[in-house]
Amino acid sequence: MTDAAEVGASGPAGTRSRPMTSRFRQREKEILDAAAEVFARKGYSAASVEDVASVVGMLKGSLYYYVDSKEDLLYRLTKVIHQDALETLEATTAVGGTAEDRMRALVRLHFEKLAANIAYTRVFYHEFRHLTGERYVEIVSLRETYERYVVALVEEGQAKGAFCRRRDPHVVMLAVLTLLNSVQQWYRPDGEADMGHLTDEYAAFVVGGLRCPRATRCTCGSQPKEEPR
Amino acid sequence: MTDAAEVGASGPAGTRSRPMTSRFRQREKEILDAAAEVFARKGYSAASVEDVASVVGMLKGSLYYYVDSKEDLLYRLTKVIHQDALETLEATTAVGGTAEDRMRALVRLHFEKLAANIAYTRVFYHEFRHLTGERYVEIVSLRETYERYVVALVEEGQAKGAFCRRRDPHVVMLAVLTLLNSVQQWYRPDGEADMGHLTDEYAAFVVGGLRCPRATRCTCGSQPKEEPR
Repeated sequence: MTDAAEVGASGPAGTRSRPMTSRFRQREKEILDAAAEVFARKGYSAASVEDVASVVGMLKGSLYYYVDSKEDLLYRLTKVIHQDALETLEATTAVGGTAEDRMRALVRLHFEKLAANIAYTRVFYHEFRHLTGERYVEIVSLRETYERYVVALVEEGQAKGAFCRRRDPHVVMLAVLTLLNSVQQWYRPDGEADMGHLTDEYAAFVVGGLRCPRATRCTCGSQPKEEPR
Repeated sequence: MTDAAEVGASGPAGTRSRPMTSRFRQREKEILDAAAEVFARKGYSAASVEDVASVVGMLKGSLYYYVDSKEDLLYRLTKVIHQDALETLEATTAVGGTAEDRMRALVRLHFEKLAANIAYTRVFYHEFRHLTGERYVEIVSLRETYERYVVALVEEGQAKGAFCRRRDPHVVMLAVLTLLNSVQQWYRPDGEADMGHLTDEYAAFVVGGLRCPRATRCTCGSQPKEEPR
């Protein structure tokens, strides 16, 4: 199988294209993994391309075959998690059902991607502000796509009466996305927190936060641990 | 008025004490404001004590009368917002009322402090990981105090039936605090977002997220914008 005809590394306009063979992709992933580790340890500003080359056992000059610059490393890391995010939206739509069903699915799928790419996600949150120019604009555009999807999901739930119509869809969207993303601050893939439990708790919190206030008191105390009807 | 007898700058054990005159405090605040600006602009790792001295128009040697090191600057910034946080807890308790009343008050008070110290808060979130030793331990301890307060508030609400007993108080606490803190990512003091509106939306979202699911549909669409009974 050859995929040498594919061209990409999908840089923004102005960066050069590279042949996307499976060998190239494997090496690129090793480099991005190393960059995530170096940026997390030293901070983006203090880190250098040489530091990253050293971790993967390459000369700095050879590394430039794969990436254009230190900022390109940060951009590529960031692009990976934003491509993941777009896959989350497609998978959420594919789940179907009510707006509440899809909001719960979004929480689960978002957490799965976040857990799978926790190192890249952390670097993104700490260092995103160092992206500039077209790279910055492209990532912001991808974020806005995700944001618009969530706003539309909230509005659909409001239109159908599942979510409270008094809530501001834009503020709620910001609340939901920052809530989900902030899990990266404390989630440890090898820690005690079970991802299934986190997903259940966060999905209940998000969907509850979108519903109308109700007058009845909680009577769940003595029942088995499942959502009451 | 003299307050020269006060001693502090409240460093962790091992750092020297300094006379806390009002003149000292004023100068210290100017230095911390400059450090926040420099750390935000260059990143903590790449910033130097000279950079901060330059912004306040002091020689590096003079600045060491006020702080011990670059890490001491980061620690002092971080300490300011954690002292604010403890004041938020005292004020929340003073509000009284139900657990739900106090959860709403906590959202409001937390946002007020965050908005007042947005520059320090942002530096804290991006650079906290660079604190070491006793300084790190002290800040973590202050955070745990805040976390325990929120867990206790959730548990009180659950015991009284206001909050759903199926929710995991520890996970809910992490969700609530990361939700509130992540406002620093997008809130602009001079932007369009009205803090009163944000507080209302976030308080409704948090309290809603803690309640039990209910079966009734939203009928708020055609009513004036206030919480339904």
